[in-house]
Amino acid sequence: MEKKNAIYEGKAKILYATENPDQLICYYKDDATAGNGAKKGTIVDKGIMNNKITMFFFDLLAKEGISNHVIEVMDDRNVLIKKLDIVPLEVIIRNVAAGSLAKRLGLEEGTPMSMPVIELCYKNDDLGDPMVNRYHVLACKLASAEELDEIEAQALKINKIMVDYLKTKNIDLIDFKLEFGRDKDGKIILADEISPDNCRFWDSVTKEKLDKDRFRRDLGNVEDAYKEILKRLTGEVR
Amino acid sequence: MEKKNAIYEGKAKILYATENPDQLICYYKDDATAGNGAKKGTIVDKGIMNNKITMFFFDLLAKEGISNHVIEVMDDRNVLIKKLDIVPLEVIIRNVAAGSLAKRLGLEEGTPMSMPVIELCYKNDDLGDPMVNRYHVLACKLASAEELDEIEAQALKINKIMVDYLKTKNIDLIDFKLEFGRDKDGKIILADEISPDNCRFWDSVTKEKLDKDRFRRDLGNVEDAYKEILKRLTGEVR
Repeated sequence: MEKKNAIYEGKAKILYATENPDQLICYYKDDATAGNGAKKGTIVDKGIMNNKITMFFFDLLAKEGISNHVIEVMDDRNVLIKKLDIVPLEVIIRNVAAGSLAKRLGLEEGTPMSMPVIELCYKNDDLGDPMVNRYHVLACKLASAEELDEIEAQALKINKIMVDYLKTKNIDLIDFKLEFGRDKDGKIILADEISPDNCRFWDSVTKEKLDKDRFRRDLGNVEDAYKEILKRLTGEVR
Repeated sequence: MEKKNAIYEGKAKILYATENPDQLICYYKDDATAGNGAKKGTIVDKGIMNNKITMFFFDLLAKEGISNHVIEVMDDRNVLIKKLDIVPLEVIIRNVAAGSLAKRLGLEEGTPMSMPVIELCYKNDDLGDPMVNRYHVLACKLASAEELDEIEAQALKINKIMVDYLKTKNIDLIDFKLEFGRDKDGKIILADEISPDNCRFWDSVTKEKLDKDRFRRDLGNVEDAYKEILKRLTGEVR
């Protein structure tokens, strides 16, 4: 499959058209941003590592019946994907208070939630991806009630699978962000990526942060954190 | 019933204990604040007008089966109420985009919502009354799922009754805030007030603001707006 023009450039990936109108090529960049683009930098080989980590999780989830947008991994940075009608929501699942949730509710970072908490943010950079609720989503027709039910059910199932798996690798899944899209039949499909860019991974014992918070908060050893996650998941040493 | 010590002073009301541990006296002040207390002022006779306006709406709603915390109006500013276990949520119902919703979703103020939108804010001044969703409420045990269902059902019913009634008085109900509490039997009961302090009322024809936005936004004629609402509802000229 040949890359044609870039149709969308995000903060961490570029999407290219292909000769097939139903398929895109997703290219993983090394660019890193934080604070809705206020802070910019590079994490060496992040694109390669996030591609591998995402595929690891997508395969794990596919075995449990969660389908995703990937058709074929082309190389270290390029993946052929189904073109979806993306639901303009960031779907955040939180098991432990951190980041904006800790701030919002006045909880100390690291406080376990009594049950998984789903948050929805309207994907809109100009508005700063504001948090919305079910009523906003329905009133603004961002998704139907049935789609939202399906998205939340999938999100909770994905969370359960990932939490249980990561526990065996001594990793706590603190929180993470998912995106979903509609395929040609209107079916809700997991899209985007699952990587240290959009998950908070803490070492279960030391509580060391193994994710993009190292970049966001200038904690150092950013690349090492991504390498460590890749190694614990796949055994690959980079 | 005799007033004993003040047990709580809010921005617009003071609650006093009485000789009956299950009853309080609610005193309506003229103090006005905006921006979570950042701006302070006085609206002459606001307490008297809000007491009357609240009682008008509470009576209207009671006829339709919505019970409230009022036992007896004692005088212009004092009301004997049931002591409730207040659910720490501001329940906001929005029919038309205005204020923080317009800003959050990038909608022009005055844009009608395609359906009523309920927002929940955690009542916590230190945190700035942050918006929360159903998952936050359940995980933090601010209310049970059954209580939240009951609160949302009552809120939507109250909205319908008020919108329909206010239409006959040439008033658009843009949005408003409610609070609820649990009585001794755990029943969810409407509490707080319903007044120009916590409703956005616009003249249906001129779209003139007849509510606290006149104070918040320094639009002038603040007292006149409260007087106009009281007059349209009860005929009383102040």
